[in-house]
Order: sequence, then structure tokens, then C-alpha cells
Amino acid sequence: MIIQKLYDEVRLKGNVCVGLDTALEYLPESFHSRYEGTEEKLFRFNRRIIDATCDVSACYKLQIAYYEAYGLEGLRAYSRTLKYLKEKSLLSIADVKRGDISKTAEMYAKAHFDGDFEADFITLNPYMGFESMDPYLPYVKNGEKGIFVLLRTSNPGAKDIEYLESNGKKIYYHVGDHLADLGNHMLSSCGYSNVCAVVGGTHTDEATEIRERYPNMFFLIPGYGAQGATGSDVRLYLSRGNGGVVNSSRGILTAYRKVENGEYDFDALARKAVIDMREDIGYGKEL
Amino acid sequence: MIIQKLYDEVRLKGNVCVGLDTALEYLPESFHSRYEGTEEKLFRFNRRIIDATCDVSACYKLQIAYYEAYGLEGLRAYSRTLKYLKEKSLLSIADVKRGDISKTAEMYAKAHFDGDFEADFITLNPYMGFESMDPYLPYVKNGEKGIFVLLRTSNPGAKDIEYLESNGKKIYYHVGDHLADLGNHMLSSCGYSNVCAVVGGTHTDEATEIRERYPNMFFLIPGYGAQGATGSDVRLYLSRGNGGVVNSSRGILTAYRKVENGEYDFDALARKAVIDMREDIGYGKEL
Repeated sequence: MIIQKLYDEVRLKGNVCVGLDTALEYLPESFHSRYEGTEEKLFRFNRRIIDATCDVSACYKLQIAYYEAYGLEGLRAYSRTLKYLKEKSLLSIADVKRGDISKTAEMYAKAHFDGDFEADFITLNPYMGFESMDPYLPYVKNGEKGIFVLLRTSNPGAKDIEYLESNGKKIYYHVGDHLADLGNHMLSSCGYSNVCAVVGGTHTDEATEIRERYPNMFFLIPGYGAQGATGSDVRLYLSRGNGGVVNSSRGILTAYRKVENGEYDFDALARKAVIDMREDIGYGKEL
Repeated sequence: MIIQKLYDEVRLKGNVCVGLDTALEYLPESFHSRYEGTEEKLFRFNRRIIDATCDVSACYKLQIAYYEAYGLEGLRAYSRTLKYLKEKSLLSIADVKRGDISKTAEMYAKAHFDGDFEADFITLNPYMGFESMDPYLPYVKNGEKGIFVLLRTSNPGAKDIEYLESNGKKIYYHVGDHLADLGNHMLSSCGYSNVCAVVGGTHTDEATEIRERYPNMFFLIPGYGAQGATGSDVRLYLSRGNGGVVNSSRGILTAYRKVENGEYDFDALARKAVIDMREDIGYGKEL
């Protein structure tokens, strides 16, 4: 089961998921003069970040929007980064938030679980209903791939749909209860399944409630750092300490900007940012 | 305003939107032997379909999942198809259903409104809330680009979230009311705005209600043919006859399969399918 691998990585390396949301403007000046072309710049930067952080982070999340924005060149860098992670036996989450049905969703599954853009996990959007997850289940059930479905995000707009209440429960619980039904039939020995959820880290009031309602669901937790969630906020979602990974992107990729002349050590400073972050979340402590 | 152009195309050519959901298995046998490589096959097929149908269809919708499924090659075909449409001054809808916030959504806007994947309209998913539309508004307000936001789809799973009721109205009306607020401030002389919606065609009960609630909203209507919606079903969504385009994909692309030895005239048969469809919807009749 792929979730078992991710769980083992978390136990070994901590809860940090490095977000490779790599925009050209995040790259050090020196990088722009050293490499030619968007593809090469993005990929080389990602490779340096990966090499510097792979023993202290559990997995890597690629936000595909950043690569799509650079067109075909960007997507070549995206593909090369995923292949590089695979070569190094590191786990990848493709943050694609696709949401569609029937044949279209089958095509998305083929796109992101196979071929040039193959990743270990992908994120999904549930708006069109639960059947939108079905085409991914063959990959999920055979254990090779996993999904993180948007459950409850912590952006202000989440109140517009996700937090609305219907039939006595919030929309996000409608989604979560379905995911729990799916996942609880295929638990790995670590206690989680390949059916996982995205849960924003900045609202602490609901954290305990969500964690208790879904004890066997593994979470991807965005919102740390720049978006306001602290180590103690996100810890609330980490049942048994291993029930999720916490994503940070800009805080890691551009850590060098906080240090004078830091750009020449950008990878070492990214590594330090990951180590600081995992300590802040509680690495090595009893949670 | 881009919506004015689409409206004019509808008046001139009818309500059909040709769906270029081009899977390799939809291509005639003869095509596979004639062209080498996925990119070339997909693009050549699309070009033949476009050339044969461009005087009888209002616009073209590309479902990006079909191209993503073939990796980088597929996306090269996707990019070439969009460029070809632009060269011929034909309108494109990129069916990408992206849904994200802040910088990520900005990157999606850049990706699909500019560069290799530039389209005239894109589809969006509202699950993360209304702020997820904001990064697209600069393009929408300057009149050059349009958005079709998922409102109410007609797949069985739509009951799981879209049809739920909260605060006295269905989730899809929460979405629609927000879109109407946005769009009504920027109506084109045709009476519609660049803020449009996706409304599935197979449920006729709600069609009149939705159309009356949003008299100034232009619709993209999937579900015709293979998914069960008839000409008279979808007509209910077409206020004044021009308030929407009706998408069909497989019914057009594989029309040749219904005719013995049809594969050699696949483009002429696609054209005939478009003409039959627009008649069925009521082309030339007072709606």
C-alpha cells in the first residue's frame, strides 16, 4: 500500500511535505544566469531542493498550476521532477485538484497515475459528487496509488460552500463521511488507507473534531507558515503523530531570502527551514 | 467582450459546441496508419473536424483530460489545436475545471489565458469558494476572456453536493447567485456577460427555473445525445434562443461509426452530425 510507504517516511523523517510550487521569481538571481530556459531552470532548482531535503522530509507536493503557467516547457520540468523523485524512491503528491466524471475522470487517472506525469498521490475536487472519485479507485484499491480529496480548506472563501450546513451537517462532513466509508474497507497495517483528505491547518477549533471523526484518515495539511498555521495548530490534526503531512512551499523554497547573501546556499537554507519546521511540528516528541 | 463574439457566432451558426474530447480510440483506422505519433494523430484529426464543422458550429470545447492522458505529446496536440482555432478566428473553451485560490489560481489563469494553452474561455470548479474566481476576473473584466463556472451538472453524483440544500437554497443556487452578482455588472450589449455557467442538460424540471433565475447568464450545456438530453430538453435553457451553447463530443467525433465504410468520410459525417444536432435544438426556428 502506498499509504504505508508514506506513513513509514513520516515516522523516519518527520511530517514535512515540501511544496515544489516553483515560480521563476522564487529562483535565486544566480540561477537565472547559470541555466538557460524555463524547463532547465525549474528542474535544476527542484533537483537541488530535493537533494538537500530528502532525508528530512516525508514527501514532495508539486502544484501543477505553477508548471502549467509556463506552458509546455513548464510541464516538461514538471515531468522531469516527478521522474527524478521516482528515481530516488521519494514520494510525490501531484496537487492537481481535478474533479470530473466518467470517461473524463478516467483520462485524468491515466494522466496522473501513469506516463509522463505519473505521481504516487493526486489531489481531487469533490464538487461533482462522489462518482467523480470512482475512476481513480482501481489504482487506489490495488495499493499502488493514493488520493487526497479536498475536504475542508481554510481559505476565507471556504465558507461559501464547504462550511455550509445541509441535512444537519457541514458540506465537508458529507465529503469526509463518504471518504471514510471508502477508506475504512481498505486499511493498511499502519491504520490508514490510500483514501486521504486535504484539511487546511489554520482553523484549530474544528481540528480535534475532524481528527476524532476520522481516526483512520491520513491528512494533507496546507496552510503552515505563510498562511498562518503554527506547529501547535497543525499538531491537532496529527493523531498518533503520524496521521498526516504538513505542506510548506514558499517558506522553504525562498528561505534563502531571509539571509544576507543567502542565495548561494539556497538549498542548505531550504534544508534548515525543513528541519526547523519539523521541530516546530513536534518531530521526535510524543504527540 | 468575448461573450459578444460567442453570441454572434451562435446567431450565425447555431448553438452547437463541438467537443474535441479526442481519444486515440475514436480515430478511424485509416488515421492510425497514415500518421505517426500521438501528437500528430490527435492534431490532424482535430484539424479535419474543425475544418469540416467551422461554418456550422459556434465554438469548440477541448476537454484537457484527454490530452493530459497522453502526457507531453497529448499536450502538444492540445496546444496546436488551440492555436489552429485562433488562426481561424474560431472560439475555444478549455474544459479544465480548475479550482484553486490566490497565487495558484493566478498561475492557472496565466496558464489557460496566455501562452501555449491560451483559450478564449475556461471552465472552473467553485468548491473552494468564490474567491477562487477572483484571479480570473482581471481577464474577464477587460473583456478578452470568459469563464464558465460549474453550476449544476446532471450526473447522478450531483446529488451528493450540488443539489444539497443549505440556508433555504440548493448549493448550485449559492454558486449561481454569486455568478449573477458578478456578471450583471458587466453585461455586453447582447445581454450576457463573460461570467457564464455550466448547466447540465438532462434535467428538464429545473431548466425553466434556472433560466428564469438567471436571464443574463450564458450557459454551456453538456449532456446532449450520449448522456440523454434531447433537443427539446436543452432548448429550455436557451432563453431568446441564444443564451447558451450545447456541447456534444463523441456523437460528432465518431459519427462515422454509424455508417458502413464511414471512416473515410469521418469529417463529412461529423459535419452532418453537427447540422442534425443544431436542427434538433431548433436552429432557424423561433424558440
